[in-house]
Amino acid sequence: MATEKIKIVIVGGGFGGIKIAKLFARENVDITLVDRHNFHLFQPLLYQVSTSVLSTDEIAYPIRSFFRGAKNVNLFMAKARGVDQERNVLITNHGEIPYDYLILAAGATTNFFGMKEVEEHAFGMKTIQEALHIRDHVLHEFERASKPYRTPEDRKKRMTFVVVGGGPTGVEEAGALTELIAIQKKEIHNLDFNDVSVKLIEATGRLLPMMPEDLQHKTVEVLKSKGVEVMLNTQVVGYDGDILKLKNGVEIPTTTVIWAAGVRAVDFIANCGGECARDGRIWIDEDLMVKGAIHQNVFAIGDCAAFMHGDMQRPLPTVAPVATQQAKVAYENIMKLIKGGSKDSLKKFVYKDLGAMATIGRGQAVVGSGLPGFMKPFFSSGFLAWCAWMFIHLLRLAGAHSNFTVAIKWTWNLFSGTRLGRIITNIKLDDDMTAEEQKALKKQTTLEKK
Amino acid sequence: MATEKIKIVIVGGGFGGIKIAKLFARENVDITLVDRHNFHLFQPLLYQVSTSVLSTDEIAYPIRSFFRGAKNVNLFMAKARGVDQERNVLITNHGEIPYDYLILAAGATTNFFGMKEVEEHAFGMKTIQEALHIRDHVLHEFERASKPYRTPEDRKKRMTFVVVGGGPTGVEEAGALTELIAIQKKEIHNLDFNDVSVKLIEATGRLLPMMPEDLQHKTVEVLKSKGVEVMLNTQVVGYDGDILKLKNGVEIPTTTVIWAAGVRAVDFIANCGGECARDGRIWIDEDLMVKGAIHQNVFAIGDCAAFMHGDMQRPLPTVAPVATQQAKVAYENIMKLIKGGSKDSLKKFVYKDLGAMATIGRGQAVVGSGLPGFMKPFFSSGFLAWCAWMFIHLLRLAGAHSNFTVAIKWTWNLFSGTRLGRIITNIKLDDDMTAEEQKALKKQTTLEKK
Repeated sequence: MATEKIKIVIVGGGFGGIKIAKLFARENVDITLVDRHNFHLFQPLLYQVSTSVLSTDEIAYPIRSFFRGAKNVNLFMAKARGVDQERNVLITNHGEIPYDYLILAAGATTNFFGMKEVEEHAFGMKTIQEALHIRDHVLHEFERASKPYRTPEDRKKRMTFVVVGGGPTGVEEAGALTELIAIQKKEIHNLDFNDVSVKLIEATGRLLPMMPEDLQHKTVEVLKSKGVEVMLNTQVVGYDGDILKLKNGVEIPTTTVIWAAGVRAVDFIANCGGECARDGRIWIDEDLMVKGAIHQNVFAIGDCAAFMHGDMQRPLPTVAPVATQQAKVAYENIMKLIKGGSKDSLKKFVYKDLGAMATIGRGQAVVGSGLPGFMKPFFSSGFLAWCAWMFIHLLRLAGAHSNFTVAIKWTWNLFSGTRLGRIITNIKLDDDMTAEEQKALKKQTTLEKK
Repeated sequence: MATEKIKIVIVGGGFGGIKIAKLFARENVDITLVDRHNFHLFQPLLYQVSTSVLSTDEIAYPIRSFFRGAKNVNLFMAKARGVDQERNVLITNHGEIPYDYLILAAGATTNFFGMKEVEEHAFGMKTIQEALHIRDHVLHEFERASKPYRTPEDRKKRMTFVVVGGGPTGVEEAGALTELIAIQKKEIHNLDFNDVSVKLIEATGRLLPMMPEDLQHKTVEVLKSKGVEVMLNTQVVGYDGDILKLKNGVEIPTTTVIWAAGVRAVDFIANCGGECARDGRIWIDEDLMVKGAIHQNVFAIGDCAAFMHGDMQRPLPTVAPVATQQAKVAYENIMKLIKGGSKDSLKKFVYKDLGAMATIGRGQAVVGSGLPGFMKPFFSSGFLAWCAWMFIHLLRLAGAHSNFTVAIKWTWNLFSGTRLGRIITNIKLDDDMTAEEQKALKKQTTLEKK
């Protein structure tokens, strides 16, 4: 070969990372995609894995499969540790990777806001392992509670499921849990279901902050009708694995706290040589370049990046459309630089808000903004909103086969009222684990979050 | 309630356990099904999970779902430890369960024939965790081998996949591995696939001993054409995780040895107060009662039981049809005893052999015996045999939804040549685990086997 190709390195195979890799795949460059996992994860449907609706394969797609026809794209499965901007290398647990251009698309993790005790005992829900962990735990608690030797207090504690955080993830999880419970009720003949409850705790006075107010009320209403106890204006101050402590002094005995109350950038972002916001996201210029990048060749997109126009109150939200729209602009800007353009010539990113939607359960969803006025009466909530939600999520799932089987599964669930995924695969959570083994498992799960 | 109902306790939710529980569900008795897992596992398709064809949910079905309409059947999720026949109690890790009649249907586990070193380093394939473990490991080895810093020796060692055992499981696993590799080859652009090999090792001179000789030859032929190196008359004497040692002195460097060379009863069976065969199976009378049962109320069926008519050379094989046929007779005999019959009045079990079948890969299978003569030329091997295999396995899978999605997936795989399940969920296997963590994981996996 005469000259070496330009080396593009992308950290993260989420919505942003996959999108920009696909764009670069058409160019005469070498692309290395670095991810800790070998799959792209459709995070918006993680809650369906945690509640036994979908199986892991249906929301996880092998990264290399996206690039079967693109010989210039390779996956480097590793954990990114940091960036040495002076030397133009990405540092990973499998050694250094030199780059000409680097795109940080590493995503976000759960934010416990410094509450170490809560972090240790509550479940996060950002990775497939965490979703499986929740599934295994919830199903196992039903089996444990059905044992005849349980005290009423112990049984009630195991049958109290608490979700913290009133955003889409928390709302969807709480709604899906009540449906899972309804199915369990049909099949667990030796358990008193009066002990079972689902509580949704939100620190502010409203659910789904991005939705118009009428849909926020509608959401509370639907959740309540499904049996969820919605606790607004309620703050969590501690959780030791047994008792959830609230700021108002109330204590809730529970073995299950699912934490969907906030996200922050993954730890790696702090070691990339940029300045970070309070939630760990790295500040980027309007051209999506990391603020103060030494060689003007490091960009950041998606959940790990903090982007603000001059007149904005807060950075853009951590949602998929931001990541994919930024991927396109970052790609265009890097191509300009490759062709000799200067920083001044780069395109400024402008976010186009496509609206928000959330399911509250089987056949129930809310769709806010993004709808033409005449459609609002039909599609903003209820069954048709759910159909719209289903359709849009299917369109975005990777792989035609997944689209098909997921569509069948959702339809099947709607009519049959069953959940096929109710299997406890992680038997290591069993009661007869030694304290030592439990500690080792806990440690591994904590490692996961990093 | 005037009088307490008769208590039937069943250990194991495999083919035999589920079948007999369904039969008793119609009677005026209380049934407790004890299993370490909350799901019934379709073991014949485990190899498809281990090679990324099917997902776990498709071959695992929640036990309680079988008994949604049967209020007299309950699952007791626990690990059985032993039986106290004098006191009529089953001992578990969650306490004792008293019984009037006990059916042992606890199944089998991998037999390493006392080779501790092999047991520690080779993969068994009897549980869903083991199948996932193989899947994660094989896929991860490809990712590890593709790293640029590997030495040629290291790369070759990681790309050598050895299956030990020439029965249906070993043949199916080896065939499926070559197909998985063919797909990996299309997508991993930075790996030399000349280093990749699959070896099938069998101690005797033939594969699939239950098949007629012409189909045995056919199987070797098909495997070879798929790229499997078939090593007959070859015995394994040791494996330390790096080097597989053969009796003939040959040493094979490999990081993957899948052990499908034998089964034995689970350890629990040794503590049930009966006499056991060399492979741990408990001897039963022709009426399926455990030989020498103190109170004539303990029966055993399926893989954990050793059954022989007077004129047989060896006990019946550990296959599903034996378990389900025995379930029916054990149920009938227990009902006779409940109604006051004596041991002399009980029915003697006679096994009806329905023939054997095995897939060798996409569109390839062999079907031995059980076929009417005129069908043999068409159905005994090749594509039509594969269709027959597919059809029969689908019929036996639990749940209409699984039948449907599995059928779609198989057809999809046949035409598209892809594997959707290629995701590494157990990131704990990652290279950056500490030695301590690896040890803890190993320990947990070993626990699984027990």
